[in-house]
Amino acid sequence: MLNDDHRRFLEDRRVAHLATADATGAPHVVPVCFAVRENDVYITIDDKPKRGPATALKRLRNIARNPAVALVADHYDDADWTRLGWVMVRGKAEIIDEGPEHRRAQELLKSRYAQLRAMDLARHPVIAIRIERVSSWGAV
Amino acid sequence: MLNDDHRRFLEDRRVAHLATADATGAPHVVPVCFAVRENDVYITIDDKPKRGPATALKRLRNIARNPAVALVADHYDDADWTRLGWVMVRGKAEIIDEGPEHRRAQELLKSRYAQLRAMDLARHPVIAIRIERVSSWGAV
Repeated sequence: MLNDDHRRFLEDRRVAHLATADATGAPHVVPVCFAVRENDVYITIDDKPKRGPATALKRLRNIARNPAVALVADHYDDADWTRLGWVMVRGKAEIIDEGPEHRRAQELLKSRYAQLRAMDLARHPVIAIRIERVSSWGAV
Repeated sequence: MLNDDHRRFLEDRRVAHLATADATGAPHVVPVCFAVRENDVYITIDDKPKRGPATALKRLRNIARNPAVALVADHYDDADWTRLGWVMVRGKAEIIDEGPEHRRAQELLKSRYAQLRAMDLARHPVIAIRIERVSSWGAV
């Protein structure tokens, strides 16, 4: 699914953008920290301040009602547009609250992001994107 | 709608991420150059290489079938997560092919992006997002 170029490009990015949509098809998009393992992308809810309880997060409510998601990681270079590029993955998202995959995903995320190591992540859900399609453009 | 902080934050960003969804509610998300004028956000199709004709672009096909869109601009700082922030706008998108608003939008985009000034933009459509809701998080 992901080829080596896609995988390397994604792993080199520190932030991606997660698009979900509600039951009426109205999109929502936020920047996220992420990790890739085989053909899954993992995102964890973390301790960053939220407006309300994590379960109320719009991205989770959307996924519960409509699991189709898209995530794009890109490189932008204001000085050289020949270097622009992006990789988008599309698929179905699952919310994982606990268990071996939840633990492995959060360990992988902690290995990528030092800031997450200080957080009590285990109580937070993980979003797992099961990749169904990969698109890319530009310098990837 | 957009307050002064939102507007300043958006204008300081060089790239945003546009989420659309198809008629089944499956999202799509790509990085875009953009400009803000009052409570509209403008994005133009440009001469950057595309896989096919601009009219076939997935973002345009989605908007034709489902005008609900979301666009987020964010600041990511790997070293200091207290500086993270984003502004998301949601609303309905219109595709504008010609006329005074099309011309003004492309002039505004050219004033922000030197690379666009060398392109023959007039033959390309503009996406106009009519902002209905603004959300923000973090250092905005």
